[in-house]
Formats: sequence, C-alpha cells, structure tokens
Amino acid sequence: MDISKYLNSTELDTSNKQPLYLQISLLIADKIQKQILPSGTKLPPERELADLFAVSRTTAINAYRKLEQQGLVWTKVGSGTYVAQARDLESLSEVPWPQLFTAYPQNPLASILRDLVSTNAPGTISLAAGMPDPALYPLETFTELFNHNIGTVPPADFGHIPTEGYYPLRRAIAAMLSEKGIPASTENILTLSGSQQGIYLLSKVLLEPGDYVVMETPTFIGAIQVFQAAGARILSLPYSEKFSIELLEDFLIRYRPKLLYIIPTYQNPTGRVMPEQERKDLVKLAKRHRLVIVEDDPYSDLCYGEQPPQALKAMDSYGGVVYLGTFSKILFPGLRTGYLAGPPVLINRLALEKQFIDLHSSNIAQWLVTMFLNEGKLAEHLTKVRREYKKRRDTMAKALLRLCVKDIDFKVPEGGFYFWCKLKQAGTSQQLLQAAAKNRISFVPSEAFHTMPTPDNEFRLCFTTHNETVLLESVQRLAKTLTQITKKIKDNDAPPSSVWPII
Amino acid sequence: MDISKYLNSTELDTSNKQPLYLQISLLIADKIQKQILPSGTKLPPERELADLFAVSRTTAINAYRKLEQQGLVWTKVGSGTYVAQARDLESLSEVPWPQLFTAYPQNPLASILRDLVSTNAPGTISLAAGMPDPALYPLETFTELFNHNIGTVPPADFGHIPTEGYYPLRRAIAAMLSEKGIPASTENILTLSGSQQGIYLLSKVLLEPGDYVVMETPTFIGAIQVFQAAGARILSLPYSEKFSIELLEDFLIRYRPKLLYIIPTYQNPTGRVMPEQERKDLVKLAKRHRLVIVEDDPYSDLCYGEQPPQALKAMDSYGGVVYLGTFSKILFPGLRTGYLAGPPVLINRLALEKQFIDLHSSNIAQWLVTMFLNEGKLAEHLTKVRREYKKRRDTMAKALLRLCVKDIDFKVPEGGFYFWCKLKQAGTSQQLLQAAAKNRISFVPSEAFHTMPTPDNEFRLCFTTHNETVLLESVQRLAKTLTQITKKIKDNDAPPSSVWPII
Repeated sequence: MDISKYLNSTELDTSNKQPLYLQISLLIADKIQKQILPSGTKLPPERELADLFAVSRTTAINAYRKLEQQGLVWTKVGSGTYVAQARDLESLSEVPWPQLFTAYPQNPLASILRDLVSTNAPGTISLAAGMPDPALYPLETFTELFNHNIGTVPPADFGHIPTEGYYPLRRAIAAMLSEKGIPASTENILTLSGSQQGIYLLSKVLLEPGDYVVMETPTFIGAIQVFQAAGARILSLPYSEKFSIELLEDFLIRYRPKLLYIIPTYQNPTGRVMPEQERKDLVKLAKRHRLVIVEDDPYSDLCYGEQPPQALKAMDSYGGVVYLGTFSKILFPGLRTGYLAGPPVLINRLALEKQFIDLHSSNIAQWLVTMFLNEGKLAEHLTKVRREYKKRRDTMAKALLRLCVKDIDFKVPEGGFYFWCKLKQAGTSQQLLQAAAKNRISFVPSEAFHTMPTPDNEFRLCFTTHNETVLLESVQRLAKTLTQITKKIKDNDAPPSSVWPII
Repeated sequence: MDISKYLNSTELDTSNKQPLYLQISLLIADKIQKQILPSGTKLPPERELADLFAVSRTTAINAYRKLEQQGLVWTKVGSGTYVAQARDLESLSEVPWPQLFTAYPQNPLASILRDLVSTNAPGTISLAAGMPDPALYPLETFTELFNHNIGTVPPADFGHIPTEGYYPLRRAIAAMLSEKGIPASTENILTLSGSQQGIYLLSKVLLEPGDYVVMETPTFIGAIQVFQAAGARILSLPYSEKFSIELLEDFLIRYRPKLLYIIPTYQNPTGRVMPEQERKDLVKLAKRHRLVIVEDDPYSDLCYGEQPPQALKAMDSYGGVVYLGTFSKILFPGLRTGYLAGPPVLINRLALEKQFIDLHSSNIAQWLVTMFLNEGKLAEHLTKVRREYKKRRDTMAKALLRLCVKDIDFKVPEGGFYFWCKLKQAGTSQQLLQAAAKNRISFVPSEAFHTMPTPDNEFRLCFTTHNETVLLESVQRLAKTLTQITKKIKDNDAPPSSVWPII
C-alpha cells in the first residue's frame, strides 16, 4: 500500500495555530480511526514522515510519540512504527476502576516523593533527591567483575533461590557487619529489594492498625508513609541538640509502642549524629522495656571526618535491635539491594511475608554486589567517594557561608548526604521552594519529613549528586532566591489575619 | 599471638565418637568463650588448621562453618576467619519475637513452595519446581549486550527511576504486546519484580477481607496464598475438559466477586489451553458483569505445536482485563522482571502501592531485558528453547507411555512446562511422593494447587528443567515407585474404617 498519498503536507491546515507535530498526529489518528490505515500497517520511518510533511525530524518523532501515547500506534526499536489494533476507546473504560480500589491513605506527602524524581523545568538543579552522583557509580568495576565471573558462576544461581537471599551475599554481608562490630552470621541476614522493603516487611510483621510507633521528627519520608499506611499511630520525638530520652521513656510507659524507628548516624534529613553516650542510654532504656529498635543506617560509611560511634546494633545486649543497611547510597540505587540483620526467628517470619511480594530479590544484582564485596572493592570505592563528597561538602559549606548566611542557619554535616537549613527570617520553606523553582533550583521543604506536616522554615539540600561547579551555581541561585523572597516578605509585611468568631 | 599452642591435636579426645569437625569446633568455641582467643583474633587458614589437627581440609572447613553458624567467628572471603565480638547468647533472646508478630495465615501450603527450592536427598531428580533449564539461560547473549552497551548507557539510568518502571523497558514491552494483538502503550505498563508482585499489588489495591475471588482449581499456589493472605474468600471453578461458564455466572450473580484469576494458556498445573470460543464467551460474560479478569500468562510463548488462541486481554472490549507477563519462564527467574498491562488509572494506583514496597524494581535487570528485546534477541532465544523443550516433552511423553501408563493417566501438553498426571489405582499423590523420595525423584502433589487442599491422586511433573537423559532416568524412578506403591496398597487391602456413632 502506498501510504504517502494519505500522508502529506497538502492535508495540513497552515492557518492552524496548533503545533505541527499535533496536527500531523491528528491527521494520522483520523486515518487510523477511519481504517484508511488498517491495523498492522507499517508507517513510514520518522525521516520519511518528516520529508512527506516537510517538517523537521523532531516534529515527526513527536507526532509518532503522541500517537503512541494514545495507543494508536506502537514502535518496535530497530523495526518501525505500526498501526495498533483498532479498539473503541469509549467502550474500553466501562470498568469504574477508582470505585474498585481499596482505601488509600490520603497523605498529601505521598506525591512529594514521587515528584522528587520527576523532572523540573529544563536547566533546574535539583538538590532534592538523596542520590549519589551517577558519575561516581562504579560501573567499570562492575563490568570487570561481570566479565571476570560470568563464565564460572553456575547458571542455576540465576534460577529461583530461597526468599532469604543469595547465600554468598548473605555470608558476605554477615562478614562485613562482623568486621564493624555487629555480630552476625549468615542466618541473621535477609537480603532486600532496597532497605525500603525492610521497613515495609517489618510493618507487615509487627504492626496492627492502631499500634504505636515512635519516630524522630523530621525523619525519612518512606518510613513515615509505610507506618501510616499500616494504620500505626506515630509518636514523635522532635529533633533537637539532644535525643529526648525522657520523652521516649514517657511514650514507653504511656503507650507501649511496638517499635522505635531511628537513623542514628547522619540522620535524614538533619545530618545529626547521635553521640555514643546517647546510644548507650537508648539501648539501656530499650532493653528495660523490651522495645524493638529499627535502626536504619544507610549513611554511616560516608563519614568525612572522624568515625561515627558504633551502630546501636553493635551495642544490642537484649536482641531487640533490627538493623537495616543498603548499597543504594554507597554504590547506586538501581541495584535495589539492601539487607536486614536480626534474629533468625524474625528473618524467617519476614521471609514468609516477602515470598508473597516477589518470591526473592533480583539474583543478578545480588550476585554483582557479592563479587564487589568478596573481591575487596568496597573499601577502595568508599575511599574515593568519601574524598569526593568531603570536597563537595566543604565547597557547599563555604558557599552557603559566603552567600546565604544572612538568611539561613545551617550546620556542616560530618557525613552523609545533606545540609539541613533554617530560614532566619519570615516565610516558609514551601514559599521559598516556589520562588526557587523560578530560579531553577529545587530542594525538599521540611514538611515532607514530618509525621504531622505543617509549613515551617526548614529545608534539606543534598550535596552529593552534583559536582562542585554545579553546587556553586546552585548556591548562587539559592542566594538569589533568598534575597528575592526576603524582599518580598518585607514588602508585604502585614499583620496576621484575625480570627473572627462565627456569629 | 601464637595460636597454634591452643589449637592442636593433643587436645582432641580420640576416644570420643563425635565427628572430628564438631570436636574441633567445640574446642575452638571453648577458647573463644573463655576469651583465650579474644574478639578480632585472626584464626589460622583452613589448610593450616587442618595441619594443626592432622585432619582433612574438609574437616577444617566444616569446623569453621559450624562456628560461623553459631556466630562465634566470621569469614571474609579472600581475607580469613576471625573471632567475632563476644556476646552473651542467653541474654540476646530477651525479646519474645513470636509474640510480637501479627497473625499469619496458617496455610499448610505456605511451606510447600519454600520446600520446592530447598534441597532433597543427594542425587534426587526434582521435577517439582517450575523452572527453565539453567543450561539454556542466555547468559552469553546477556554478556554481549552488557559489554556492548555499558559504555553508552547514561549512569543516571542506574539511579532512582519512577516506580512504574524503566521507561525504555515499558516501551519495549508495550511494543511486544501490541505485536501480539494486545493494544498497549507505555503508560499501560507497570514493570514488576516478577509477576508474583503483580498478584500481590492487585490484592492490596482491589481486595478487602471478606471479598470474593474466583479461581480455577487447581491453580498457581502463589496466587492462592496471596489472595488468602488478603483475607479473600475463594470461589473455585473445578478443572475439567470445559471451562464452567455456567458456574462462573452463578458465582457472579450470587457473590459479586471482585475478580477472576485465570491462566488461560498452558495452565499451571494442568497444562490446559482454553479454546478460543471459551475465551470469547468468558470475556462476553465478564463484560456484562463488569468483572475484573486477572489474566496470568507466563507460558504462552512456549508452544510446541500450533499457536494458542489470543490472550483474553487481546479480546478485552470493556477495559476489565488485567494482563500479567514475566520473563522468568522464557529467560530466567533470577531477572525478577515481570510486568502488568492495564489502564493508566490502575497502573498509577498500583505504583502508589509499589513505592512503599521497594520504590521501584531493579534497574539493572530492567536494562538487561530492554536490550534483549530491543536488539531482537527474544525471537531467536524462543526458537531455541521451544525446539529443545518440545524434544523433552516428546521424550517424557514416550517414556511415561512406555513405563507408567498402566498406573497413571496423563495428557501430552501442547506447551508450557508441565505434565499433569493422575493415579489410576488406589493411593494419594502424597503417598506416592513419600515413596518417590526413597527412589530419589520428586514432584508436586496436587493438593499444593488447591484452594481447599485435600489429599487426592493427581500430581505435576515439570519437564523443562532437565535434559532428556535425566528425564528418562526420572521416569524410570517414577515407574519403579508406582510399581512399589501399587503392590503395597494391594497388600494392605483393608475395608475402610467404620464410622462409629458416639454414644
């Protein structure tokens, strides 16, 4: 069939103000719906389509993309673009899906995390997501390890494996933890599809709706969401210079919480390190009350000065500390490989739950991480990223001090990923974010990290994702925004609105 | 410290009948507990330990393994074995973990799936797990793809990605489905950590405790477990030559079930293919009742004769069919990469649930599968495995016919992984399995696939995992077992026990 007679520029309405790609896609859609172009028809390659309509190749690509989104055509890489099966789009929405869905915790934060990885305006520098720098992912090392070992790994290692994880990885993680003073043997380790999955599994296995959970606030949004979705009631330990052991004790006596979730080292988002004495006091109190502590420890390997104190798990004298670790921050997130260390009875119960969810985590990722650990590559890699991130932290600290210190307070973190900042003047961090978007800089306002989100004046900057040049630029954009917003708030200096009684 | 003075054969009690490795491990454990060998001490390499005690290297390895299991030492591959942190094992169990756990559905089947992948007696041929043959995993192709593309993939592709999946993979899957007559665009696709995760997510999003779910029986155990764990009440459509559309209609009117879970092509475990007319009737009925159909389709690419009818999803005229696919059976399970096709509103809601569980699935596996699809490797690989599995099916069928046909009925499957067999004579498949274990052959008895497990006389044999030589051997062992059990049951031919009224 000669398609070109149906597809050419004579059919385009040049007076029309719609973008050309849209006009072309509408024209093709019309031919498809009228079955002039029947299902299975191979459409011209993008370059040819561009010639037919005398448009740029980008316009042709966008026209096909639009049609693909509508399900009218499909593209097979390396083969071409084809007209899809005809279907009556009207009748295809006869099932009222949203009415069928179970209740969803309508947490307004739920979308924030998703937005963190979604794209901003072009050219925006995002200090929002807590991500290592892709330029530092050890992909070359992984390539070497892959090639060196793919010939000798038994193929059955890529079949089904026990839910608890790839045995050689569990063993290597146990050794790694033992070396850090956390006693662990293979049977204490459950490998996870990221440590997020550990939080989820713990919520399934330990929490009934209405149970109490103690969390620091602010804290990791992913943990808040999971515990809230499990129907738990959150008891908050507000962030301050000192861990409030008295308030925790009060909670323990008053509410008998099921667990305490805590990030003792380079806390997310505040960057705080819990001092050794506080850790000892906490474990002592937890032991007395048989409190389960979930210790989330994604950052402790990323120290830029002196070593942080030992993990709570290393001080665990009563078997109640559950330890979560991950390779997402020190290697890269796409491995989706984390782990949980705990007593075998807990590992077994968590595995029973995990088998429903995914049978077991990806063997390929687990195999890659195993080789990375067993061939001693981790120490080498950590030395490299620590040196680099330390430089970035220092650069960022200097720039913030130079350009922003009149408007914000901040502490220089001793490790991890984040600067935690506080506006000195009026205005909320949400307002700042809105203004910052115009200057193409983004970050996470504090309310995302609170169990009871209320607008306030703090925010988190991640300093590890970008190199120093970009970081300097980002601080300049932030400084510019701060000046603008300060000025604006001064301009609009009005008294707070009064509370009018309803009469 | 010279350790050798503490570790030598003079301390071994030669009159003791305990295995040597155990004696050595106890001796070392004793020195560790008395802190003669303090925490952090590097123990001698296995070879040296073997020399010190004048035992074999295997004995030395087993002694260290025992100590590792007890958490007394830890081994770092390539470095050595070290004494672990001292800990008082008594006090480490102060938390009564099992008392803290939420209720767990006490399904006796739960452990069967787990046992499927656990080891049998040495030399056992397992036809139990539904696994492709590791010898056919396309690891060489993946190695080529890896090396060819690792230099050009943007490293950020291995950072965090949207929960819905790696965009190029979603696009490639949409094209693959479109080619099969299943209209799909990128936004219709959610990538999963195996299709098991799709079943889990659907249960979270669609089912409240007490909701009704219709399933064929027998069916896939992983689906039964998930729906039961969600508190659903299962309505069973018994397997027979014809799909019971009348019974389904009765269920629809009487119970308004939330969904029907079905494997229309090469069903697990029966191997049945639903004929085209039955499919049309089913979709028509489902449309009338706005019934959600979850179509699980892991096997349809593995046909050994004529093409099976189109998927239900290809006939979906009301938007109510949700399609589950996976690369576990056609490539290999360790990829943990499956997918779900459905309307965007459902994909979005499922993704909201999935982000709590693992943020997103492994990018490495998703990237590998994307290249496999985009570089046209799948068709090539399918041709190869179809040819091989067809030969195995034929070999198995011939052997069963020759050696077992007096004791069992079976049908030759047109595709997929399984023979479904039925004992002709007295006895249950569970009894057969027990007898078979002694002849070092294993399979899955039918009760594992039933929503209401009762012992009966059917069982599943997977014919894809082993080559023809092993398959022939397995049928010989099965035939031997059948002869033994038939004889035994004849020997014990007693009347059934009477029912005595309680007076």
